[in-house]
Amino acid sequence: MFFASDNTGPVHPKIMAALNNANQGYAMPYGNDALMDQLQTKIRELFEAPDAAVYLVSTGTAANSLALATITKPWETIFCSALSHIHEDECNAPEFFTGGAKLTLVDGVDAKINPDNLRAKIQAEETRGVHGPQRGPISITQVTERGSVYSLNEIRALCDIAKIYNLPTHLDGARFANALVSLNCSPAEMTWQAGIDVVSFGGTKNGCMGVEAVIFFDHKHAREFEMRRKRGGHLPSKNRFLAAQMLAYLTDELWLECARSANAAARRLADGLKQIAGATFLYQPDANLIFAGWSRAGHQRLHEAGAQYYLWEGQLQGADENEILSARLVADWSASAENIDRFLALICG
Amino acid sequence: MFFASDNTGPVHPKIMAALNNANQGYAMPYGNDALMDQLQTKIRELFEAPDAAVYLVSTGTAANSLALATITKPWETIFCSALSHIHEDECNAPEFFTGGAKLTLVDGVDAKINPDNLRAKIQAEETRGVHGPQRGPISITQVTERGSVYSLNEIRALCDIAKIYNLPTHLDGARFANALVSLNCSPAEMTWQAGIDVVSFGGTKNGCMGVEAVIFFDHKHAREFEMRRKRGGHLPSKNRFLAAQMLAYLTDELWLECARSANAAARRLADGLKQIAGATFLYQPDANLIFAGWSRAGHQRLHEAGAQYYLWEGQLQGADENEILSARLVADWSASAENIDRFLALICG
Amino acid sequence: MFFASDNTGPVHPKIMAALNNANQGYAMPYGNDALMDQLQTKIRELFEAPDAAVYLVSTGTAANSLALATITKPWETIFCSALSHIHEDECNAPEFFTGGAKLTLVDGVDAKINPDNLRAKIQAEETRGVHGPQRGPISITQVTERGSVYSLNEIRALCDIAKIYNLPTHLDGARFANALVSLNCSPAEMTWQAGIDVVSFGGTKNGCMGVEAVIFFDHKHAREFEMRRKRGGHLPSKNRFLAAQMLAYLTDELWLECARSANAAARRLADGLKQIAGATFLYQPDANLIFAGWSRAGHQRLHEAGAQYYLWEGQLQGADENEILSARLVADWSASAENIDRFLALICG
Amino acid sequence: MFFASDNTGPVHPKIMAALNNANQGYAMPYGNDALMDQLQTKIRELFEAPDAAVYLVSTGTAANSLALATITKPWETIFCSALSHIHEDECNAPEFFTGGAKLTLVDGVDAKINPDNLRAKIQAEETRGVHGPQRGPISITQVTERGSVYSLNEIRALCDIAKIYNLPTHLDGARFANALVSLNCSPAEMTWQAGIDVVSFGGTKNGCMGVEAVIFFDHKHAREFEMRRKRGGHLPSKNRFLAAQMLAYLTDELWLECARSANAAARRLADGLKQIAGATFLYQPDANLIFAGWSRAGHQRLHEAGAQYYLWEGQLQGADENEILSARLVADWSASAENIDRFLALICG
Repeated sequence: MFFASDNTGPVHPKIMAALNNANQGYAMPYGNDALMDQLQTKIRELFEAPDAAVYLVSTGTAANSLALATITKPWETIFCSALSHIHEDECNAPEFFTGGAKLTLVDGVDAKINPDNLRAKIQAEETRGVHGPQRGPISITQVTERGSVYSLNEIRALCDIAKIYNLPTHLDGARFANALVSLNCSPAEMTWQAGIDVVSFGGTKNGCMGVEAVIFFDHKHAREFEMRRKRGGHLPSKNRFLAAQMLAYLTDELWLECARSANAAARRLADGLKQIAGATFLYQPDANLIFAGWSRAGHQRLHEAGAQYYLWEGQLQGADENEILSARLVADWSASAENIDRFLALICG
Repeated sequence: MFFASDNTGPVHPKIMAALNNANQGYAMPYGNDALMDQLQTKIRELFEAPDAAVYLVSTGTAANSLALATITKPWETIFCSALSHIHEDECNAPEFFTGGAKLTLVDGVDAKINPDNLRAKIQAEETRGVHGPQRGPISITQVTERGSVYSLNEIRALCDIAKIYNLPTHLDGARFANALVSLNCSPAEMTWQAGIDVVSFGGTKNGCMGVEAVIFFDHKHAREFEMRRKRGGHLPSKNRFLAAQMLAYLTDELWLECARSANAAARRLADGLKQIAGATFLYQPDANLIFAGWSRAGHQRLHEAGAQYYLWEGQLQGADENEILSARLVADWSASAENIDRFLALICG
Repeated sequence: MFFASDNTGPVHPKIMAALNNANQGYAMPYGNDALMDQLQTKIRELFEAPDAAVYLVSTGTAANSLALATITKPWETIFCSALSHIHEDECNAPEFFTGGAKLTLVDGVDAKINPDNLRAKIQAEETRGVHGPQRGPISITQVTERGSVYSLNEIRALCDIAKIYNLPTHLDGARFANALVSLNCSPAEMTWQAGIDVVSFGGTKNGCMGVEAVIFFDHKHAREFEMRRKRGGHLPSKNRFLAAQMLAYLTDELWLECARSANAAARRLADGLKQIAGATFLYQPDANLIFAGWSRAGHQRLHEAGAQYYLWEGQLQGADENEILSARLVADWSASAENIDRFLALICG
Repeated sequence: MFFASDNTGPVHPKIMAALNNANQGYAMPYGNDALMDQLQTKIRELFEAPDAAVYLVSTGTAANSLALATITKPWETIFCSALSHIHEDECNAPEFFTGGAKLTLVDGVDAKINPDNLRAKIQAEETRGVHGPQRGPISITQVTERGSVYSLNEIRALCDIAKIYNLPTHLDGARFANALVSLNCSPAEMTWQAGIDVVSFGGTKNGCMGVEAVIFFDHKHAREFEMRRKRGGHLPSKNRFLAAQMLAYLTDELWLECARSANAAARRLADGLKQIAGATFLYQPDANLIFAGWSRAGHQRLHEAGAQYYLWEGQLQGADENEILSARLVADWSASAENIDRFLALICG
């Protein structure tokens, strides 16, 4: 019963196997390996983007910050949700990598950026000449940090606004696969066809050991990104082991299979919760994250049984055992129906 | 015949095994895993440093830059060799992570910092009030980038100068193990007992997949490093797989065994070269790097046979087949006597 | 009729005289001049702060950014109003000088930070370990950018919260004198006695040519500030001419006299506006800034007569001449009653 | 007898008069003033550069750092003399403003960059792919920090090398006028006609109160510079007083007159020194700086008489009164023949 995060789960056996297979003999370092070539080809095919520049880094914060730094000037501001990872969970990494750009927070329902609010925030900048920050990229998170998923129309609406103001767009896809299977669309549809310029394409949360791709659909950013990656300490000498993971991840739809598994687990959990009297949902659970509340007694029983997850609001200890405390539950690819049912049973008591 | 770099070789099977073993069930992310606790204990024991703060990152550039940024103010200058990795091979990463500090280059024989030159360079700074950069840390590389190894006395001499001026000291130990077995001393002797404050402790070049430790002997730097690591994108969620590598590396003296193997291979290569008429050495080969020259004809035969290494000076094509061209040869833990002998035989023709 | 800004007005003749007087013979550069010594003594006396460290720079953005950089770590966030100069009008200078810190916006009435909101925003940070930004300084603006003035109790309330969390406090006093005469208190009361640690003490907007002081009540920040100032390009060689301005400004209460004159002018303007049918006020005008609205016809008459000020909302051209358009009016020390009355008369038509 | 620096001397009366004249009524801030328009026109005419973008800042460090940041990427290295102001006297300001670029030091005689050394240093970079810093601008100092002046041919030779590698060029002209009158050439000849792209054009050391221009001969850099200037805190609200100084400086050849006066004073000093037995020169004195040595007894007599200058090597106190101690002497526009002769007489005893 591990629902603390999708980064607490095991690496998928096929990815472990790929790592073992990659460890045959010698390979040139720093991305000049054959697996990286294969991966670039693979990603270009999957995204129907023959000119895409593809890079690998080992963390999501690196992917986001390096991608954003490449498309943001230090005097610009990045438009993003107040509930985005780049704002809340990267210890000012975007500010650091951009050389001191700003983040402008745009509100919306279910941790999504609202188009009207975006337009208003964009219009409010560049009204003070050189004094205010200048308009910079729009960054959206898909799956959002609260578990909702932008529809294709919603992404397009935001990108269309970006286009009006000639601003670049970034998609933080730490849970890209979970969103994709939720929408049942193609990678191209969810990205460049909707107007996205750069993607942080996550692997770590969905069965990999530690690898994220950065994909620029316009090759013009390639050289600058390579410089920023190297000086950020994010160019691994044994890049082949990052490439091996990502290749296995994308082979035979493993990435989609893992994401379907995680989303299905979350759905089973959500469906179960809906049938529990008093259970509440804080956000729309569209993928593999659930923010839901149930009785303190239920939480206490789970705690005693060793279930792992983060309480979102409230304290485990308290007088009123019927008080509803909310939690964040994340299902990874390996979550079993058995454990979910056990989890639900413990809530009910 | 792969002597291009010690990062082109395979991961040691025991480290692969450790990664497979670590992939059992769930573990808390971001370093809050049991393996990381074990590793911290292990490193403190090995270094006889019970208060050391230990961190893992995935590249040497990250280890060096984050370590240096933690002990350098932006208005200071870092004293280092002109042939150091931090100056030549990190695309200004130290300047980036420190927020704009400077590197002051100190000459010496065999890519080592000369103590008299160090003293002179230190004294030349802070003579212009707030106008010049202020004196910052001394950073030395062990094994140096040219394959020589500082003796303990040489390290002590540099650290003693640092102490006079109250400056912190950093050791870039990307090839720490190779130096240690070359000197046949303890980790403590080569570091804090000699006066070193912070170590970049390499694993990747010596059989790991991608892991370097940063070790602060004074715990006071811990919190700042943690902040810098996170905002540098260098805090891996699945840190357990970095810890697993490093733990296996340090278990049953695997790290020393790999280093001995690499150094012995380099020695066999050097000894063979010495017996070849006309062969020259550019630097003193103390560990697993050799900078040596031999005839163009020898290089051409190696090239045709598929040997991998970097020409250091000169061009493979040329009229005079007796011309001496130099090369950089690096042996990793997996270099076999058979391949070395074949390599030597090809030089002789 | 110049009400565009208090930086459009003339330098006070006494300050011009001081500049002329300072131009006698030779003086050592970079702050090692006799006038700077006198000024440091003068400011320490005025602020009843014998240990204060005092520096001069030539712009308000430099004063704010350098002061904040000295008390903010790159991984921290600065709590400030969404309507603060450091957020809206410095083109990300605080982000730049701090090396990538964040600004957390705290709402409140009349562009003041609300204490409850401040407490909530502080509490919301440092709940995510190293992932979120860490809590940093509180920065308040006095006079606020919308013309209101914090009472001593209001400043104390914010500083008391800062103290609970052990956070430093900064006061952006670009219009320090205007606030002081509005409150009729002492410099000490409005700053360190209320809990303020660092002050940007403006001169330029109140009759100087271009000089702002940065005052640290705790001398421990002195050396770091000196480094940051120099490397920011803000250490003038002929510092004596900055010191001369500031000394004259503080002599014989010139600064208070100028501020009283500006505030009185604004009051005359506000009082006049209040008597005009339909006139509205957007914020509480406590000092020398007024945000007020009146008819388009009034604006058009002023425009034709050459009055200078910024329209705040709405367009000068329009069909409805009775529509209320708002404006920002700033009175400087030189604003004459005659011009104000003429301005008011033009509104009435 | 003030020869410590050309920034210790008085502001020229015509510049003081211009400041007083500029203080008439109101003017729009931040460079939107009529004087700035006149100045831009004036500088374009003087430099025969109708498309030049012209900006004013208050210090030389700001001019250099902002100019260089505009033409340097963070991953590049700036080629400059080890004796340049940007390397020795700006407390890492170029590293700060560029976001962490490096400075590569190029040796040469008399503090000038030697063309062969420059070529070698340029060729040594970009040989290590993304690992080393990339080639960036060439920055030369005219007058050099040791008092020599590049001939037009020497400047052209360096710029021609820059052109081969497609690198931009910067001229630190803190003493631009002194060099110009020394070479007796036109501003265009010494800059863009020789291949210079950006100039830091000094005023402060030659009779102004505190103003330096940055001149881009290619207008494409304008917007980026404006952003960097603002966020560096270097956009003065009352810019008109910087423009007034620079306009007066350039009117009726005042700048050339001041420079001729300073250079003539230095020549008188140098000529006098040459006739003193035992006097030595460390560098070729081409403009208004002299590095020369004479007896300790001479220094002691000057010291007692209150002469101000920096000893360059050696200690004032010592047993041997015939020992030669060297000094840096800088003449400003106001240095009088009378004082120079008195200075020389005191050396002779």
